[in-house]
Amino acid sequence: MASLTEHPQGTAEAAGQKKIVISVDAMGGDRGPATVVAGLAKSAKRNPDIAFILHGDKPKLEPLVAKRDVLRGRCEIRHADDVVSMEDKPAQVLRNGKNSSMWSTIEAVREHEAEVAVSCGNTGALMVLSTMRLRKMEGVNRPAIACYWPSRNKHGFNVMLDVGADVRADESDLLQYALMGTSYARNSLGLARPRVGLLNVGTEEHKGRPEIKAAAELIAAAAPVGEFEFVGNVEGSDIPSDKVDVIVTDGFTGNVALKTAEGTVGLVKRIFKEAFVATLPARIGALFASRQIKIMTQRTDPRQVNGGVFLGLNGTVVKSHGAADATGIAAAVDLAYALAEHDFNHKLAARVASVPAPGHDGQPDASEQNGSNT
Amino acid sequence: MASLTEHPQGTAEAAGQKKIVISVDAMGGDRGPATVVAGLAKSAKRNPDIAFILHGDKPKLEPLVAKRDVLRGRCEIRHADDVVSMEDKPAQVLRNGKNSSMWSTIEAVREHEAEVAVSCGNTGALMVLSTMRLRKMEGVNRPAIACYWPSRNKHGFNVMLDVGADVRADESDLLQYALMGTSYARNSLGLARPRVGLLNVGTEEHKGRPEIKAAAELIAAAAPVGEFEFVGNVEGSDIPSDKVDVIVTDGFTGNVALKTAEGTVGLVKRIFKEAFVATLPARIGALFASRQIKIMTQRTDPRQVNGGVFLGLNGTVVKSHGAADATGIAAAVDLAYALAEHDFNHKLAARVASVPAPGHDGQPDASEQNGSNT
Repeated sequence: MASLTEHPQGTAEAAGQKKIVISVDAMGGDRGPATVVAGLAKSAKRNPDIAFILHGDKPKLEPLVAKRDVLRGRCEIRHADDVVSMEDKPAQVLRNGKNSSMWSTIEAVREHEAEVAVSCGNTGALMVLSTMRLRKMEGVNRPAIACYWPSRNKHGFNVMLDVGADVRADESDLLQYALMGTSYARNSLGLARPRVGLLNVGTEEHKGRPEIKAAAELIAAAAPVGEFEFVGNVEGSDIPSDKVDVIVTDGFTGNVALKTAEGTVGLVKRIFKEAFVATLPARIGALFASRQIKIMTQRTDPRQVNGGVFLGLNGTVVKSHGAADATGIAAAVDLAYALAEHDFNHKLAARVASVPAPGHDGQPDASEQNGSNT
Repeated sequence: MASLTEHPQGTAEAAGQKKIVISVDAMGGDRGPATVVAGLAKSAKRNPDIAFILHGDKPKLEPLVAKRDVLRGRCEIRHADDVVSMEDKPAQVLRNGKNSSMWSTIEAVREHEAEVAVSCGNTGALMVLSTMRLRKMEGVNRPAIACYWPSRNKHGFNVMLDVGADVRADESDLLQYALMGTSYARNSLGLARPRVGLLNVGTEEHKGRPEIKAAAELIAAAAPVGEFEFVGNVEGSDIPSDKVDVIVTDGFTGNVALKTAEGTVGLVKRIFKEAFVATLPARIGALFASRQIKIMTQRTDPRQVNGGVFLGLNGTVVKSHGAADATGIAAAVDLAYALAEHDFNHKLAARVASVPAPGHDGQPDASEQNGSNT
């Protein structure tokens, strides 16, 4: 496990304490670096042994970090001249992004200086950059973005993937998503034997596209060795249900579903808000219920579950929402910390290796696991 | 326009009044024929010139209809021995379904005895049966199911299609969906120049799958003659927004999005419900705000917008939700009535014919256009 104690520049060394280091892109988000630093401070309060390498415009970042007592001695700043904007195309970033804060953020994970990277920048660029610099994990064809989805399950969340890494997925990809999602649910939600469902337009076996029918067979066959339960097809309405823990789908469908849910929550909240100011009795009612209204507003706040995770690379990258505020950034950093603490990426690699993809000869050679694409 | 006055068996003849006749499958729904008849009664109260041909088990239906004064003289019952179950595969129904209430329901539209068909049975079977018996409209390759989607627009709803007729759609299909959705929005929501958006994983032009990029070009080119505005790519979060009136997507993605939204509304409502019984002040608050809570519960009730419409056939079919209660059935019947009143299907055919699909020879013969103000 990488830690600042191995690096002379790491300020944690002075304290003689082992820290978990998170590499953070200060520059990508819509709200600028001050919000990112505020988020780090929030997370640092909750996680005593966390430390940061923060990438971006040093002259801007230094005073922001200096203002936060809780970050003292726990936050190394690395200067980067450039910023990847939301408009930059991934190919541009690959060609010209070497001096960007995003590139530097990924590089710290590649060089094992930090455990996990966090950025709220351009998703497409972050995905392409992460894939090129960290390389795909042995046995993974398409990396995926997984996210938490508020659910009726006791643990409060389901895992959904892919929510936007790739617009296509064939049956082998969907099988890998099942394995990766299982590992993520096990390590982040603590579920020993996650229930996996395949997103489809109906629960009957004959429904859906050909690749989904093929994936259902592959996933069912992999369930015993993958140590998960396959519940078969699930529908959109099951995503927040307690029938399933991990929902597997292609990145186009997953991205649309995720954003549809966000839009729906927004609309319902707006209707509720309008209702509670519409009449005098309603306003009085809102006053009485104000504490509970606040709690339920928080429970349905997408910022509480901020952080998509890139799975299937040799290194973990957490993508925070571009518009995330300090609360959202802190949630993404908390997630990064939790994954680092569980040594998640090694466990994920072992899980993927346990079920060879169809057409492969067998177990991958451990000595070749340096990112060769299969 | 078909009406019971043309048919001696039509009981409306006695009243000497022109009626709009809706063909209704009494047997398909999860809650049985009593719920369907209750729904007809609700709709009949609101629509004085509506009449029904009701298909199903006559001995069961007769006493149910007799109990409802409002249906007296407006509801012909046609006996059908068989019922299409939710488990029946479409191919089975095509082979063996001739004596089913669903078949008989479609047949009444095919024979021009009724304007529009309504069923809450098996969607797959209804789609296949409708396509085989009514046939695809000239120029349409894949029929689509359109639904209303609660939105921030002044008129309260957006139109989304396809939400589940077909799991695939190429660029020509997506173009036809744009034309059909436009016509549906114009005739059912009264929008002169609907704004059409193409569902994608981002709003940038370079995003998404190849067929979506191709569709964007076709739809943009068709906008002037189709008399709609093309707003380009939209994301899942835009579906309930006021940026767009008609959202075009393939039936797999559309179905997942629709069911995801249903599941999300269910989860948010549950969280709200729990909040309002959690503490004494909250319960008091709920009491004060009870009238507004009731209104907002209704506004977010999917039953209020029940009724997917099959577009692209020689005849209109409204698919009600399988689990619909009397309120839901009545909403679907109201929609069927509104479409019949606007002579919608002729207008839709003219609209589709106005933009030849790529690869077609050219403009259709104008003499075949039965309703130019589409």
